[in-house]
Amino acid sequence: MSTADPPRFDGVRCLIMGGGGFLGVHLANALADQGAVVRAFGRTPADPRELSDRVQWKNGRFEDPVAVAEAVRGQEIVFHLLSSSVPGSPGQRPAFDLETNVLGTLRFLDICNDAAVRKIVFASSGGTVYGQADSHPIPETAPTYPISAYGVGKLAIEKYLSLYHHLYGLEYLALRIANAYGPGQSILKRQGVVAAMLDRALAGKPLEIWGDGEVVRDFVHIDDVISAFLWAVTYDGPHRVMNVGSGVGLSINQVASDIEAIAGTAELARTYRAGRAADVPINILDISLVTRETPWRPRRGWLDGLQGTARWMTARRHASL
Amino acid sequence: MSTADPPRFDGVRCLIMGGGGFLGVHLANALADQGAVVRAFGRTPADPRELSDRVQWKNGRFEDPVAVAEAVRGQEIVFHLLSSSVPGSPGQRPAFDLETNVLGTLRFLDICNDAAVRKIVFASSGGTVYGQADSHPIPETAPTYPISAYGVGKLAIEKYLSLYHHLYGLEYLALRIANAYGPGQSILKRQGVVAAMLDRALAGKPLEIWGDGEVVRDFVHIDDVISAFLWAVTYDGPHRVMNVGSGVGLSINQVASDIEAIAGTAELARTYRAGRAADVPINILDISLVTRETPWRPRRGWLDGLQGTARWMTARRHASL
Repeated sequence: MSTADPPRFDGVRCLIMGGGGFLGVHLANALADQGAVVRAFGRTPADPRELSDRVQWKNGRFEDPVAVAEAVRGQEIVFHLLSSSVPGSPGQRPAFDLETNVLGTLRFLDICNDAAVRKIVFASSGGTVYGQADSHPIPETAPTYPISAYGVGKLAIEKYLSLYHHLYGLEYLALRIANAYGPGQSILKRQGVVAAMLDRALAGKPLEIWGDGEVVRDFVHIDDVISAFLWAVTYDGPHRVMNVGSGVGLSINQVASDIEAIAGTAELARTYRAGRAADVPINILDISLVTRETPWRPRRGWLDGLQGTARWMTARRHASL
Repeated sequence: MSTADPPRFDGVRCLIMGGGGFLGVHLANALADQGAVVRAFGRTPADPRELSDRVQWKNGRFEDPVAVAEAVRGQEIVFHLLSSSVPGSPGQRPAFDLETNVLGTLRFLDICNDAAVRKIVFASSGGTVYGQADSHPIPETAPTYPISAYGVGKLAIEKYLSLYHHLYGLEYLALRIANAYGPGQSILKRQGVVAAMLDRALAGKPLEIWGDGEVVRDFVHIDDVISAFLWAVTYDGPHRVMNVGSGVGLSINQVASDIEAIAGTAELARTYRAGRAADVPINILDISLVTRETPWRPRRGWLDGLQGTARWMTARRHASL
């Protein structure tokens, strides 16, 4: 076995909070592949065509402490991927975000603590916690002044995890994930610019771009994100916050061009819409810490990953016609 | 007028949220002295022997949006000193802290935003937001991993202030204040180790010390804290978070010895109690930023400040006998 092979989790009881989402479904299936006994918790079940039948599904709301406590009972490793908002949530409702995500997570941490969970792996947000960084790529030690309510919420959760670690010894690792993309990403939930643009390109519609398209993002393939989660479980070094991205920046206009090339269309008309206040102009993560501390590396190249996503989306379109 | 004289605020309408507390009463009186039209808001009125009758008192709870909105209406500068918890709150109730302080402050920021308040000066906590710092004195750029719920709450409020500044242009300055002490500090509210120990020494009782007494703190006199608040109003440079302390560290055992010397007692017996998980071993603030960016300097020497506090406390004891 090379160091690049993901770790095994034979018989380890793993719970995924937010198991029906883009990351959650991939993570649940990957954990099951690695031998774990996987339970997934969420509000709406994942598409059964996507979620492995080896994964036990638990339906429930994060706001329901009884349902959450039942889901957590007996679990060793808990992945916290739940969020009631997305980075560009319209209206920026910070109080809503604080109540549902942060306060909800605090109650959840109490439950995990009582249940003697071995470790929590938290999906933080490399794209939002830093806000407008002075320089790129951004290391974990950079200042954190998010310009979205979503980002402040993620950051506050990191701080509470650190507090619970100090007070109660609760183990955790927070992964500050860049812009994940890949097969399985929903177009409806406004999660990803790659999915949204690919969908329009494959339908021959003009691409919609927020701002002037010169916004730069760090796109990381879902397979790489998932393997980072697996390595996060086994990591037992001193760091508790790690960036996970490709370490490379791409402008939205570049993404649009690459998508047009892959979709085989001539250059489509592009619709430029007003930029959003919650969007930072540039976000590229410094991934030297995670690559130094764990065997993890980003392995999926951008164009290869994009082609795979386009193939999945095409098959999906045909299946639903 | 030397640059050391505090700025004037003739006719400026200033509101102090938490105007009945230790900092609030001193700040209200100082603002009135400098010509401001001062309104103070709080749950319980301050001692009328302490609060100037030039200050308008508004009774209300922070959780009552109608009362808060009424207090904020027409105000130009708002000082946010309110907190429902203290650094060493027993039980560490993070959810309570989050709901009352952080969520309450978010609603309060919405009100200030709607009322077109010119600037908010926030009393953050230099003693708790950094957690266990790697080196001392601690600059504002140091990592922030608080080990108390109080500290996480203060830090989260700083992040929301930054968010509101970005989204809505709301102006603010957060002062990360060290351990304030001086006349007016309550013994009952467990706010300050200096007040608590002075009170016992003056009564001839043994001093109570948490831990082994080798915990180091940065004690800053209330007069210096208040003048930092005044300078914070006029500061219009790029920084929005500033440490305010003496820049000097003193162990609790040193404080005890100095208090015994001032109280004129022989060395009193000392009672050592178990340390608290929320106490960092050492906290000394780097105050070079605020001294570079503003005319503010800490002016009250430690022993002089301590003697003044002892005189006030003695007079107070005699008055209430």
